[in-house]
Amino acid sequence: MSLKENFLLKVAQSSELVGVIGLGYVGLPLAVSFASAGISVLGFEKSEEKAAMVNAGQNYISDVKDDDLKQVVANGKLKTTTNFKKLAECDAILICVPTPLDIFKKPDMSYIQASCEAIGQHMKPGTFVCLESTTYPTTTEHFILPILEEKSGLKHGHDFWLAFSPERVDPGNKQFGTRNTPKVLGALTDDGLEIGQAVYQKAIDVIHTVSSPRVAEMVKILENTYRLVNISLINELALLCGKMDINIWEVIDAAKTKPYGFQAFYPGPGIGGHCIPLDPFYLEHIAKKFGFDLSMINTAGHINNMMAHRMTIKITSALNRHKKAINGSKIMFLGVAYKPNIDDSRESPALKMIDEVVKKGGELFYHDPFVANIETEDGLKLSSSDLTVEALQQMDCVVISTNHDAFDTDFIIKNAQLIVDLRNAIAEPSEKVYKL
Amino acid sequence: MSLKENFLLKVAQSSELVGVIGLGYVGLPLAVSFASAGISVLGFEKSEEKAAMVNAGQNYISDVKDDDLKQVVANGKLKTTTNFKKLAECDAILICVPTPLDIFKKPDMSYIQASCEAIGQHMKPGTFVCLESTTYPTTTEHFILPILEEKSGLKHGHDFWLAFSPERVDPGNKQFGTRNTPKVLGALTDDGLEIGQAVYQKAIDVIHTVSSPRVAEMVKILENTYRLVNISLINELALLCGKMDINIWEVIDAAKTKPYGFQAFYPGPGIGGHCIPLDPFYLEHIAKKFGFDLSMINTAGHINNMMAHRMTIKITSALNRHKKAINGSKIMFLGVAYKPNIDDSRESPALKMIDEVVKKGGELFYHDPFVANIETEDGLKLSSSDLTVEALQQMDCVVISTNHDAFDTDFIIKNAQLIVDLRNAIAEPSEKVYKL
Repeated sequence: MSLKENFLLKVAQSSELVGVIGLGYVGLPLAVSFASAGISVLGFEKSEEKAAMVNAGQNYISDVKDDDLKQVVANGKLKTTTNFKKLAECDAILICVPTPLDIFKKPDMSYIQASCEAIGQHMKPGTFVCLESTTYPTTTEHFILPILEEKSGLKHGHDFWLAFSPERVDPGNKQFGTRNTPKVLGALTDDGLEIGQAVYQKAIDVIHTVSSPRVAEMVKILENTYRLVNISLINELALLCGKMDINIWEVIDAAKTKPYGFQAFYPGPGIGGHCIPLDPFYLEHIAKKFGFDLSMINTAGHINNMMAHRMTIKITSALNRHKKAINGSKIMFLGVAYKPNIDDSRESPALKMIDEVVKKGGELFYHDPFVANIETEDGLKLSSSDLTVEALQQMDCVVISTNHDAFDTDFIIKNAQLIVDLRNAIAEPSEKVYKL
Repeated sequence: MSLKENFLLKVAQSSELVGVIGLGYVGLPLAVSFASAGISVLGFEKSEEKAAMVNAGQNYISDVKDDDLKQVVANGKLKTTTNFKKLAECDAILICVPTPLDIFKKPDMSYIQASCEAIGQHMKPGTFVCLESTTYPTTTEHFILPILEEKSGLKHGHDFWLAFSPERVDPGNKQFGTRNTPKVLGALTDDGLEIGQAVYQKAIDVIHTVSSPRVAEMVKILENTYRLVNISLINELALLCGKMDINIWEVIDAAKTKPYGFQAFYPGPGIGGHCIPLDPFYLEHIAKKFGFDLSMINTAGHINNMMAHRMTIKITSALNRHKKAINGSKIMFLGVAYKPNIDDSRESPALKMIDEVVKKGGELFYHDPFVANIETEDGLKLSSSDLTVEALQQMDCVVISTNHDAFDTDFIIKNAQLIVDLRNAIAEPSEKVYKL
């Protein structure tokens, strides 16, 4: 029996072992989705703490249901290890590690590289390897493939198969999760594509195949670049509308009545999270190699870079109404998560604004029902304050930086002296409220 | 009875006379929509020829049904005049004139100005005036209002009412026309808004009111700026994908499987038509007054300005495969309309490419089943050639510049020597086909 036939037979019998490297916000939901479908999953996690939590059935990712995790741990379908030698036991290995930018906004490929070296050292012949992490097009072919072949001594297409399938996790999305979000898959060979489909369709309803990994890589970047560009566009227009006495949210609501050819994006203090502020710059990075400047991404990045500063000017202007300066004022940020109703403050514009306000002498407080503690880029450590009548009354200015549903705007309006509303949380205009 | 009560009574009795200034691709469908609803319409048209055609029931706008026009002319509901003194007879006056850019890409407000001067000279007390032409926010308040008051000696809010309601015509759209496309309306006063709603709801199903004309003006610009920016983004990414051996259309089709947060735009040789290449630059114009640079629009405009040139390079590269240059080659463009299945070649990128190819010494032909004759910016006049076997065989290169459904791609592939496909009209890759 060929390696391929052997692989497909295992899948047909549901006796394959799926390895998932990295049990973060992508890997853990994916692992649970496979395990819930009755497939044995071995999670690989560098962090001893996280591995122990998963093995104890303790959930730390809000998109995973506690009960789902408990169940697949209890029935033995999901096990987690910090021992990467066990990659040798896996039939399929799915890489779900971070692809951040370094401090100079260049791709940091170190997590992918370490994963690939471990896979190369340990994988057995007949393994299917797939990267899920967002990265620049050609990564699978030109970065991963050489490492795997060199470290393993195995030959791609003959001894193992390599593919790319971008994660499409949207944290906090109640409607679309791992299983019901269609998954794009591109492999280097037809066999790899066939095997990849067989693997993924256990955990995901719809697999959309494309002709190559680089097409799949580009798909993910296009999706997030579209968002970066459109959020940046609406932020820039919001700043102009502020000057022209036009309510940008009213404009967007009216534009939405066009029944074709328009999709609404909403302004805010800037782009946050682990995808949209980063992914397009992976493309910008590889474009340079092809002698290409991506002017739209560059412009969008520029707008986004300026937003925290621009928002600090809004705070200054609001305080100016009360003849106050930031220096010496008590300022409370409401919401430090990068989007509503989630607990993730990575790349959150609130943190950048906080650094800037503190630098200008503001006495800083924040409240976020989902984020108990933060540390800013400048190293400032803060804990969430209680949102009491007294706390609000003492503040010279309250900044609504994230529109969590939990915020009681009537309560805030009643008790705050001055509100800078960066999220259109307060519909009614009033003297107290200064809008983006 | 007050002027307002008198107006609303007329509307309640359907005895109002609606004047429509400019019977082009916006005004004629609007006039027919009112007249078809049983409202008497008087069209105002500078062109004697067009006025005579409408009065003879002869249609010249493809979005208007011939029979609809014939019927409303036959039953006397739609009459057209070149005599602007008759504005004095109208209860409502809707301005549907062009707002082009001049050769330096600055707003040309002369059509609006002439209309407003005529209205100001002739309108009676109790008239509702509404602009439909796309223009920069604040036009209604700061440009139109002073002209009307000065020329008429009437007082706004007391003697007449002024509003803005952007046209949303999408030429060739079979699903959404004048009546079933929701219409945004903003007036300077509550009375004006009430009257405007009463007027428009005779011809249009859904009226979405906003708080001011400047909000309504911004709505239209947002809708079209969104399109300019996204088409420019995908065009820039398409150029990169061409270098990276990635089929951008395959990428878009895969990205479309994301069930939220993505809207597909498709690349092409550039943006055409009378809206998207122009409207955002109206906003850029007024933004300068507020000390504001709109970097996204500026970047998008830059990409669009370069597209014809970039596409000419694609033609050069394709011919290079056959060891030929543009100079001395016979080149046929298929499609000069700016989008498929319509007869409009205004601002069409094909015309710009044709000028550039001719400048480089190409022997130029075109075929378009909808456009019999063209004149380019450089003053070149051409007529559509027949699309015969012989014609195709004689060409050194055939450029698919518009994806009209009428084009038989099998026939083109069979007979052409070399095809530059700028619209993904040909799905199958082949040696003959060079793609954007």
